[in-house]
Amino acid sequence: MHQPNFNRRDFLNTSVSAGVVAGLAQGGYFSASTQANENRKLGVALVGLGSLSTNQIAPAFQKSARCKLAAIVTGTPEKEKSWSDKYGIGRDHIYNYNSFDKLASDDSVDLVYIVLPNSMHAEYTIRAAKAGKHVLCEKPMANSAADCRDMISACQAANRKLAIGYRCQYEPHHLKCMEMSRSKELGAIKMIEAGFAFKIGDPKQWRLNKKLAGGGALMDVGVYALQACRHLTGEEPAVITAQETKTDAVKFAEVDESITWLMQFPSGVLAYCSTSYNFNGLNRFNAFTENGFVRMDPAFSYSGNRMETSKGKVEFDAPDQFANEMDAFAKCILENKPSKVSGEEGLKDLLAVEAIYKSIETRTSVKVVA
Amino acid sequence: MHQPNFNRRDFLNTSVSAGVVAGLAQGGYFSASTQANENRKLGVALVGLGSLSTNQIAPAFQKSARCKLAAIVTGTPEKEKSWSDKYGIGRDHIYNYNSFDKLASDDSVDLVYIVLPNSMHAEYTIRAAKAGKHVLCEKPMANSAADCRDMISACQAANRKLAIGYRCQYEPHHLKCMEMSRSKELGAIKMIEAGFAFKIGDPKQWRLNKKLAGGGALMDVGVYALQACRHLTGEEPAVITAQETKTDAVKFAEVDESITWLMQFPSGVLAYCSTSYNFNGLNRFNAFTENGFVRMDPAFSYSGNRMETSKGKVEFDAPDQFANEMDAFAKCILENKPSKVSGEEGLKDLLAVEAIYKSIETRTSVKVVA
Repeated sequence: MHQPNFNRRDFLNTSVSAGVVAGLAQGGYFSASTQANENRKLGVALVGLGSLSTNQIAPAFQKSARCKLAAIVTGTPEKEKSWSDKYGIGRDHIYNYNSFDKLASDDSVDLVYIVLPNSMHAEYTIRAAKAGKHVLCEKPMANSAADCRDMISACQAANRKLAIGYRCQYEPHHLKCMEMSRSKELGAIKMIEAGFAFKIGDPKQWRLNKKLAGGGALMDVGVYALQACRHLTGEEPAVITAQETKTDAVKFAEVDESITWLMQFPSGVLAYCSTSYNFNGLNRFNAFTENGFVRMDPAFSYSGNRMETSKGKVEFDAPDQFANEMDAFAKCILENKPSKVSGEEGLKDLLAVEAIYKSIETRTSVKVVA
Repeated sequence: MHQPNFNRRDFLNTSVSAGVVAGLAQGGYFSASTQANENRKLGVALVGLGSLSTNQIAPAFQKSARCKLAAIVTGTPEKEKSWSDKYGIGRDHIYNYNSFDKLASDDSVDLVYIVLPNSMHAEYTIRAAKAGKHVLCEKPMANSAADCRDMISACQAANRKLAIGYRCQYEPHHLKCMEMSRSKELGAIKMIEAGFAFKIGDPKQWRLNKKLAGGGALMDVGVYALQACRHLTGEEPAVITAQETKTDAVKFAEVDESITWLMQFPSGVLAYCSTSYNFNGLNRFNAFTENGFVRMDPAFSYSGNRMETSKGKVEFDAPDQFANEMDAFAKCILENKPSKVSGEEGLKDLLAVEAIYKSIETRTSVKVVA
């Protein structure tokens, strides 16, 4: 019988407004009665055992109400043993990229969580769907909007669900900011500033390899700032303008180092945004409204995010974002409902990302066309 | 014998680093020995007696070491009497816009401080120079770069000095931020975010009249954000990209309501900026550096500005910005040295402002050409 971890239970019981609880429930949290009705944990095949899987996702299974680590897919034989030892995964549930498609006959696996370099998202999402598995795919969804469409089609054709790893959509401060912005509690949004940057380390990592990463800072962390603007307004950007700079042409020979961009939304809201792989300390959004503001700083961390509005600080116990993201997707699968972080949602981000790159290339403003 | 007011003396004596003191001295503060040598206060003719003159500049004369209010120019007869009563200005030193040129024979007036609607800056600067007076002109310097050039030429031809009312250049936190940024104490700047907005009141005021104001939020308060970026980097923007929105087409029928813009500087620094007449609470800059940050929030207020760096908060006693701006210009006049807030400085802002408007109009990125 499942027991939610103390932090989340405490959070759900005591510390949030009805509106946020409703938002979280919609997003996939389980009510007590749902827990009683649904005892089975869905089996997850974790694909790609890099640092995100090692440090965030594997530990998140311990906090997950509805998912368990059932299988791993790795190209590194040493990881087969260490993960097997640590998480008790039997030989029959360990795959590599050649044997990946054999997941089709692994009944312990309900869904595949893809945590690979960006350029591999499309291929492995499509192969997973063809193997009959639901897919949770890390952000950015793919290297191109075209790939996103192929992934959506493949999952539709296989009648499998597809969700993108937008963990902030399961972070209570984000949900409260979205709720306050959209309800116009502080008046309509007039402008948004959002940025996410960090100083990237190892120059040989895949994130700096265009073939593997597709792009640089924008694809990796800029999408968080982009999502914040889209979700605070509840709109898609209509016109995008952007600039790029490269101050280290060796390290960033293949991918973007720093990008700033502007977005105009249909309601007239303007957003000004930035991202970089070349400095730390920018991790925030500010929504300026008619009568005040809503902001988070830090906004996009795995934990420790802080929210403030013109009415004061707003604090929630923040549950594990990855556990909640997985649980929400499990709920969608079990109840046969669409995910709020669907493939279509990932596609919308890629359409904006492509418009940003196109604006940089053409030195003109670019209309975003769905 | 002049005595500096307690706050500024205290500030100069005790509360700032040697570097800032050097910066302030350069900017126009008087050392004790200069004070002893130069006892005469320069006479100022204040042109335009709106709220800035009434609430900020007139009181600043009480704190000024080197300037006194010697004459007024106003088109409003009631103000002639109220200002005369309050500040003891004799009949012979009260002018209107028809009698303005008679300032030429008013020996009590050394310099003219122009605090008129933007579109009148060029005409009255040129007339003041022709009347043989030095000119301190409020920002924005003029409605166009062409007007700026005419103003510079007129002052050069008359051998009179010209300075623009960039009060933040006499604000110690701004000077410290500039010093830290340019010395690379926290590493080179990687990116700057800057914005200044406020919700404008009376829909009938001159600031919303294109003929009088030249432009809207950008010309009025956006220039502060622009200046911050220029002075933090010590560079001129090379390429500018911008977007505009108008959510209240009645109130802002003639001038810009909200603008966001991007700037790329020759060293590679990117800046992302914003301005608006339609919301409050945005009044800041953030310089993100290789190893930390330097920021002010609020940054552009008359008082109460706050500075913080990745090393901690930095607090100075902040002297009156207008008094120090006037004193610095008086020093330039007395010592026959150029002002750091020269007409050329105002021109540089207008070149960037024109590039921003051009980018909005053409929907392309615009190279800034001096």
